[in-house]
Amino acid sequence: MHSFRSHTCADLTKADVGEPVRLSGWVHRVRDHGGVLFIDLRDHYGITQVIADGDSPVFSQLEKVRSEWCIRIDGTVLERDASLVNPNLPTGEIEVFVRDLEVLGAAGELPLMVFGDQDYPEETRLRYRFLDLRREKMQKNMKLRSDVVRSIRQRMWDADFNEFQTPIITASSPEGARDFLVPSRLHPGKFYALPQAPQQFKQLLMVSGFDKYFQIAPCFRDEDPRADRSPTDFYQLDMEMSFVTQEDVFNTIQPVIQGIFEEFGEGHSVDKVWPQISYRDAALWYGTDKPDLRNPIKMDVVSEHFRGSGFAIFAKLLEQDGTEVRAIPAPGGGSRKFCDRMNKFAQEEGLPGMGYIFWRDQGEGMEAAGPLAKNIGPERTEAIRTQLGLGVGDAAFFLAGKPSQFELAAGRARTVIGNELKLTEENRFAFAWIVDFPLYEKDEDTGRIDFSHNPFSMPQGGMAALEGDPLEALGYQYDLACNGYELVSGAIRNHKPEIMFKAFELAGYGEAEVRKRFGGMVNAFTFGAPPHGGCAAGIDRIVMLLADEANIREVILFPMNQRAEDLMMDAPSEPASGQLMELGLRVIPQD
Amino acid sequence: MHSFRSHTCADLTKADVGEPVRLSGWVHRVRDHGGVLFIDLRDHYGITQVIADGDSPVFSQLEKVRSEWCIRIDGTVLERDASLVNPNLPTGEIEVFVRDLEVLGAAGELPLMVFGDQDYPEETRLRYRFLDLRREKMQKNMKLRSDVVRSIRQRMWDADFNEFQTPIITASSPEGARDFLVPSRLHPGKFYALPQAPQQFKQLLMVSGFDKYFQIAPCFRDEDPRADRSPTDFYQLDMEMSFVTQEDVFNTIQPVIQGIFEEFGEGHSVDKVWPQISYRDAALWYGTDKPDLRNPIKMDVVSEHFRGSGFAIFAKLLEQDGTEVRAIPAPGGGSRKFCDRMNKFAQEEGLPGMGYIFWRDQGEGMEAAGPLAKNIGPERTEAIRTQLGLGVGDAAFFLAGKPSQFELAAGRARTVIGNELKLTEENRFAFAWIVDFPLYEKDEDTGRIDFSHNPFSMPQGGMAALEGDPLEALGYQYDLACNGYELVSGAIRNHKPEIMFKAFELAGYGEAEVRKRFGGMVNAFTFGAPPHGGCAAGIDRIVMLLADEANIREVILFPMNQRAEDLMMDAPSEPASGQLMELGLRVIPQD
Repeated sequence: MHSFRSHTCADLTKADVGEPVRLSGWVHRVRDHGGVLFIDLRDHYGITQVIADGDSPVFSQLEKVRSEWCIRIDGTVLERDASLVNPNLPTGEIEVFVRDLEVLGAAGELPLMVFGDQDYPEETRLRYRFLDLRREKMQKNMKLRSDVVRSIRQRMWDADFNEFQTPIITASSPEGARDFLVPSRLHPGKFYALPQAPQQFKQLLMVSGFDKYFQIAPCFRDEDPRADRSPTDFYQLDMEMSFVTQEDVFNTIQPVIQGIFEEFGEGHSVDKVWPQISYRDAALWYGTDKPDLRNPIKMDVVSEHFRGSGFAIFAKLLEQDGTEVRAIPAPGGGSRKFCDRMNKFAQEEGLPGMGYIFWRDQGEGMEAAGPLAKNIGPERTEAIRTQLGLGVGDAAFFLAGKPSQFELAAGRARTVIGNELKLTEENRFAFAWIVDFPLYEKDEDTGRIDFSHNPFSMPQGGMAALEGDPLEALGYQYDLACNGYELVSGAIRNHKPEIMFKAFELAGYGEAEVRKRFGGMVNAFTFGAPPHGGCAAGIDRIVMLLADEANIREVILFPMNQRAEDLMMDAPSEPASGQLMELGLRVIPQD
Repeated sequence: MHSFRSHTCADLTKADVGEPVRLSGWVHRVRDHGGVLFIDLRDHYGITQVIADGDSPVFSQLEKVRSEWCIRIDGTVLERDASLVNPNLPTGEIEVFVRDLEVLGAAGELPLMVFGDQDYPEETRLRYRFLDLRREKMQKNMKLRSDVVRSIRQRMWDADFNEFQTPIITASSPEGARDFLVPSRLHPGKFYALPQAPQQFKQLLMVSGFDKYFQIAPCFRDEDPRADRSPTDFYQLDMEMSFVTQEDVFNTIQPVIQGIFEEFGEGHSVDKVWPQISYRDAALWYGTDKPDLRNPIKMDVVSEHFRGSGFAIFAKLLEQDGTEVRAIPAPGGGSRKFCDRMNKFAQEEGLPGMGYIFWRDQGEGMEAAGPLAKNIGPERTEAIRTQLGLGVGDAAFFLAGKPSQFELAAGRARTVIGNELKLTEENRFAFAWIVDFPLYEKDEDTGRIDFSHNPFSMPQGGMAALEGDPLEALGYQYDLACNGYELVSGAIRNHKPEIMFKAFELAGYGEAEVRKRFGGMVNAFTFGAPPHGGCAAGIDRIVMLLADEANIREVILFPMNQRAEDLMMDAPSEPASGQLMELGLRVIPQD
């Protein structure tokens, strides 16, 4: 018989009754029923109940084992009495009578129980991660992550992509965040950097003639910690293709992402049609570039109905340049109580408040209620109702001013309204491509023009687009939003050096600066670069959505805490002085 | 039609004749036949010949394109004249007459030609890696690497392993090489380290209850460069299993490795029986712990035939403690010329030389020739011949002294003899498990006892093995040798804290030191650790063997040069002073 097990703890059924078996695993739970011991023995695969009484030669040893000891038992499979069958357990029809016992690994007093679902402080969970990971939910989350990554790989291979590993110890990369540096021993005073993303390398792969690349790539950013962000590293499905347009990238990645959500999104419907929404429309309709389309509310411009109306606040505002009035329709929100609560929410968000109108049935037909309705009169009120497609029992909220000043808050109000009115579907994954991002944005204070997102995107219209008003120029750049999160980001790249230099020039970067910062890639573009594009999808975020977790540390095996420390491994730590000397470095004493 | 291509450059055949097509790719080669232009257009998938003459509206533009320009052409598929069919090309029956042209990316003067197989200095190849990678051999090597990694992953999944990513920014790991450090910004003066291997994490995964883990893991070691070693990072198939013996690990990994070599080892036979050879026997028989079993020569101890014999040098040597005489049989090496050449080789290796005997047919039966035969006489000579199984036309070489002083050179002589006599089979992958490694070795100068390999292996016999002579203690530790290289290394781990502390104590490390260096893992072992073991296989080495390359940089996309520099990306480089300030570091000025 095998030294440790003839079966796993999930294997045995009624068919094995009478068989001699050997099992290994952890003591999940011990129950002592006065002379009869019941132990739930657990391994990665399942749980088997093992029992012993005075007839067992190892009864007295077995009495000594405690929770989370790792043991090996030999025994005989017994059929459980019909009344004791556990239908929730695959092994619930049997139990194993113990005849021999070996303690493989004893356990001291536990700082954290594996059995049960008691909550523990995160610091305890991370310090004793090896216990925390034994818990059912963590085993499930990590298995899910492993399965998701496997399925992504298979889907990319099936789409004829090659997986390549790009360097991890390399040069600073231009993703805009802070690099982790790695001091060089052979070149004291010089440093490598860990890649914020394999951006330059994947573009170099395209220039090298590899047509379709992907990688489950570790990315490193020295960022200040946040609950939904790892303070050190995270993983992306990174991909790039040559000789493609934006539509090709969409048609390639949608089946992969959709397939993953269909495969692992237990009990959720997965949208099959992914609308393409311009950045501008997304801001207008949803107040965000990562809209949650499970919420059917779509905001709209209603300025005309207020211009010169009796509602002086809005009418006056509209006389200023760049102002608008936008409406948030709220089907089913037609009560003063609800409208007042939403108005209060807006005030808490730092807005002056949201005006509203709601429609009710007063017995003699529909009536528009609320202060705004009175001020602008029945004709304008009715025009608004018609435009928004509302009726009895519905409401609409109004925000006015410069959109940039209320858009984000409007988006949050839309979310709250959707949730409160139960308009937002649960158990659904809704996707939208956000396209037509502006290439540049103007700093309202300094008037300076800078890249709004990625400096490496191809302008729509090529060089010509850079010869007009830069703020009008759009890029072939796109994000995928899912349920209010950004899941994917990508672009068709600017592979023409002359267009790239021009694009940087508009943002105030000279050619020398561009060559210094992105020399490896820019130089390569002068040797026959193909048109190319791609995207990167956040693995941690995908798994978080599928596991329905809000904290990234629930889907990472050994995460750092929020101070970027690994309490279990004691990182970071003081180096040996010899190490620093070898690197030619000295630590500056802190005050 | 698609913006860039209706077909790849490998797609078109006679079935497409007459069709309008669009192709994109690189100008591989241009031939100008006076008024007719022939261009081999190349993409990742293949090559298609495109042609133009004065009838083409873009003839004059096409005349301007140069090697490695990236272009898009529209044209019509023509059947080649039977005499011009190229049977070596899948597209060799057709060519495309060009009607439209777009230059997607022009190229400057090339520092390195993609067409042809001219050699370039490695520095040129690495600085212009994006051109070097376009070459046929590099495309093939990188595709092979990608395919090998894919196949490994599939085989591991099929064997029910989960792939998990372990931290890359972490604590110093105990692999014995030098760590790369990463300064912490949030904790100035403290450092993370990049993992030399995920050793502690994979063991922690077993303690966490994950039964079978693998990862294609990046490993980081700050080592001095060597041709067959990357100076920064390399990849391993890293795996670990719980509740297993050494045989279980062998039975799990053999099908994976053997399968890979069968799948990708074009035209090579792959051994199906992998002998297990003890470390001691490997040293004796092959003079190395990574023997090349394609070479049938097996050395043997022949001391008894020389003890007290007329060959005084050996006879005297044998009077000293710990000395031996060993023979290298050389079937087919029975000529004085060959024997003298081998003797000279041994002298170049720093040995006093190798005595030899060879057997020839003098018309009147077999004769043993060479000075040794005369000295020891016919009886002893014949006994040697019988022991080694040699005959007419064969030779044997002899080395004497303390084995540790000649073993390595004997191993090299065995290799040379095997190659020169063409005994070593080509086109074969031969594997052997080397087992029973001693846990400790004694420094001959200091007399100090230290771990000979991995301090984390379980001693054979457990605690009892550590209570006798440490130098006799063997570990459950193993290597896999293939064609003279170490391909895999692994062990059944020491999961019992008390045995681990004892093992370290014998090597002079106190409990406090062990807790300080490996605290994360040792602490975990006190909370119910399962028996576990595994191994790691070198990906770069596997691909080198399959691609028949001797330099690791031929199987890595973007390798560092031998001074650990990336010339293309300019790494390492001087940091911005703000970066160092944020990290609380100062560079010590070098003399």
